[in-house]
Amino acid sequence: MSELIRFGVSIDSQLIQKFDALINRKGYSTRSEAIRDMIRDTLVEQEWESAEHETVGTITIVYNHHTRELEHALTDMQHKSFHQIISTLHVHLDAHNCLEVLVVKGKSQDIKKIADRLIGTKGVKHGKLTMTTTGKELA
Amino acid sequence: MSELIRFGVSIDSQLIQKFDALINRKGYSTRSEAIRDMIRDTLVEQEWESAEHETVGTITIVYNHHTRELEHALTDMQHKSFHQIISTLHVHLDAHNCLEVLVVKGKSQDIKKIADRLIGTKGVKHGKLTMTTTGKELA
Amino acid sequence: MSELIRFGVSIDSQLIQKFDALINRKGYSTRSEAIRDMIRDTLVEQEWESAEHETVGTITIVYNHHTRELEHALTDMQHKSFHQIISTLHVHLDAHNCLEVLVVKGKSQDIKKIADRLIGTKGVKHGKLTMTTTGKELA
Amino acid sequence: MSELIRFGVSIDSQLIQKFDALINRKGYSTRSEAIRDMIRDTLVEQEWESAEHETVGTITIVYNHHTRELEHALTDMQHKSFHQIISTLHVHLDAHNCLEVLVVKGKSQDIKKIADRLIGTKGVKHGKLTMTTTGKELA
Repeated sequence: MSELIRFGVSIDSQLIQKFDALINRKGYSTRSEAIRDMIRDTLVEQEWESAEHETVGTITIVYNHHTRELEHALTDMQHKSFHQIISTLHVHLDAHNCLEVLVVKGKSQDIKKIADRLIGTKGVKHGKLTMTTTGKELA
Repeated sequence: MSELIRFGVSIDSQLIQKFDALINRKGYSTRSEAIRDMIRDTLVEQEWESAEHETVGTITIVYNHHTRELEHALTDMQHKSFHQIISTLHVHLDAHNCLEVLVVKGKSQDIKKIADRLIGTKGVKHGKLTMTTTGKELA
Repeated sequence: MSELIRFGVSIDSQLIQKFDALINRKGYSTRSEAIRDMIRDTLVEQEWESAEHETVGTITIVYNHHTRELEHALTDMQHKSFHQIISTLHVHLDAHNCLEVLVVKGKSQDIKKIADRLIGTKGVKHGKLTMTTTGKELA
Repeated sequence: MSELIRFGVSIDSQLIQKFDALINRKGYSTRSEAIRDMIRDTLVEQEWESAEHETVGTITIVYNHHTRELEHALTDMQHKSFHQIISTLHVHLDAHNCLEVLVVKGKSQDIKKIADRLIGTKGVKHGKLTMTTTGKELA
């Protein structure tokens, strides 16, 4: 079990006033929570710089489901990576456009490769990889 | 109905060789598809610079479901924005950590506000807003 | 004159250990300094979201000085924005390639426009706008 | 010597109309130039992913020159990296704040390390590394 510690930050009063205004706008209840979020964000960025680190990402793609063979190609690709792809959410945006979000767990380099393949598929209009974390190492 | 047109790009042979190698690695089948993707990516970025533009985003959060009151707070917040939040996918990453992806549709500034609130909630370890598109304006 | 204040941050011991390792690698002497940097970085990002805010940017361009008319076009463009462009540094990278950095002060939207024009000039191989600050509001 | 080639891109007419409007706003004279810029931008990003690749960056720092020992520390640090630091531009922003831009050439990982050290120095209010290129491999 890990424990909670407390440390002090010295800062110029004008700087912290601006920061307080900002985190208030963003809905943070305390400075500690906002600072922990900045710290965790930096650590997640680091995780992704190591190609072999096990981590989690979400891949968001928007595509036109009328594109011939596209859905088949996407499903096929996903099955080849079924070890990494945990789950998928599908949303019908309108009569033509679909959005799909895939939750992927694995080595950061493998997740990047799966994202590249999906985003590069003909018919996919827009795609993005979101780099997040297993949460395990972020208390 | 919109139609397909064709235009020419003049480019240094060394530059296109490097580009071909890159898009081949990323799994693109043609240069046209890779270039259309770069164009759409730039246009989606522009969409998000206009606060009032209707668009689509996904919000990914990782949190510890043992955090007291967190799940309640998250559900509560999502219900207040039910007009924008289309759908949600929940994944149990391990015994403690959950990942949730929300698909949100609305004005870009409203989606950003919902993301800020969720990411700023105490107990959420990591969160990211992914800016994508309704696909409507991207043929 | 502004004064120095001190506030406490409570944090999980494992999280701060990872953060200490990271900031040590980056050469920070104290946690306070690292946290102040993260805070200032966030505030500078905010400054740039307001189109009218007076701020400072640097524009870096790499170009081939053999490109006919390029140097003339660049100089011409810079003189039209002489109110904003404070200073320029020119480096000869090799027999063909030059790098130029411009320090620009003005409204964020004007700096962006100058950057777009310079980067879009035929013959400029690569260009980037770096968003920094006047430093005035960041104690 | 490299030569100019020409290839065709097929694209939906609505998509290219939006793209034309955007590049027109940004000051591009032709589609080819805008597309070459997107291609070069992507290739420069790739260069920086390889730690050993020789490349060029600019490091922008804003600091208060009254901070005791800061200027000495910055100069000292720069002399230790004199092999990489090609040139430096100094601007007096106001009575207190200075901006310095350093042009750095070397392996991408070494440039990143120099940037981390400078940005992490006590008294530096804001700092950013801009990743650009030697231009050699980008015709």
